[in-house]
Amino acid sequence: MKAFQDYYPDELAQCFGCGRLNEHGHHLRSVWAGEVSEARFTPEPFHIAIPGWVNGGVLASLIDCHGTGTAAAAAYRAEGREMDTLPAHRFVTASLRVEYLRPTPLGPELVLSGRVRSVTGRKVWVDITVSVQGEVTVRGEVLAVEMPETMRAKGSG
Amino acid sequence: MKAFQDYYPDELAQCFGCGRLNEHGHHLRSVWAGEVSEARFTPEPFHIAIPGWVNGGVLASLIDCHGTGTAAAAAYRAEGREMDTLPAHRFVTASLRVEYLRPTPLGPELVLSGRVRSVTGRKVWVDITVSVQGEVTVRGEVLAVEMPETMRAKGSG
Repeated sequence: MKAFQDYYPDELAQCFGCGRLNEHGHHLRSVWAGEVSEARFTPEPFHIAIPGWVNGGVLASLIDCHGTGTAAAAAYRAEGREMDTLPAHRFVTASLRVEYLRPTPLGPELVLSGRVRSVTGRKVWVDITVSVQGEVTVRGEVLAVEMPETMRAKGSG
Repeated sequence: MKAFQDYYPDELAQCFGCGRLNEHGHHLRSVWAGEVSEARFTPEPFHIAIPGWVNGGVLASLIDCHGTGTAAAAAYRAEGREMDTLPAHRFVTASLRVEYLRPTPLGPELVLSGRVRSVTGRKVWVDITVSVQGEVTVRGEVLAVEMPETMRAKGSG
């Protein structure tokens, strides 16, 4: 299945967190799973806080990109059009909140689940959980906004 | 000058964001600069959101590690002892909030500045800004807590 990020135009698909064209990044891929969005990610052995536990910065990064990806998908859905139609939606994060409820063990696949709270104009709020083997270890909240033209212009230039 | 992170015991110094022993990580280093803590970091060319702009996940990761490092330094200071004395303080993040005020341009060195809001028991609040060439582009807030023994035990094991 194509991920939300697969619909980003090439010049906007180099994000360290989710860009398919970033050779060094996390390559997060998000899809719809019914009413929620989902991304699965298995951290590398070096994505740690201390041995045995996933690094909080990496978790924040995954939440960030799952949030902006979900926001783009929600914007298409709100307009009743497919993700392969133009103009392309591409969101950036205005604010990010992450609550680390308990340490996230390294090893098993992480499941990020996103729920769209609201879509209003250029703003989308997304609530996200990170689970490991069915247990939620982290909660996140992303306020995503459509990428400003000034930013996009530099990206394309 | 030795950074706060240089005082982390070896078994707790493998963090992806700031561990001196992590071969793949960001190696963030934080020091006191008067009353505030400071860390300087120049992103790699691939640490981008889109070309020309620094990735928000990387920025969150830097804020996260600057927050926990500052928390450890503040805890020693509150106890009136040096960072090379035992027991070693090592904090983890309970919550992280990041406000992206404007896009952060890729290229120049980033300066993270941390201000300790409070030190109470095992909890330290730190307010952080990220600046580029004198302009604040991101504000962060970190609630850091002393690493739980259960987590530390796995790290040492």
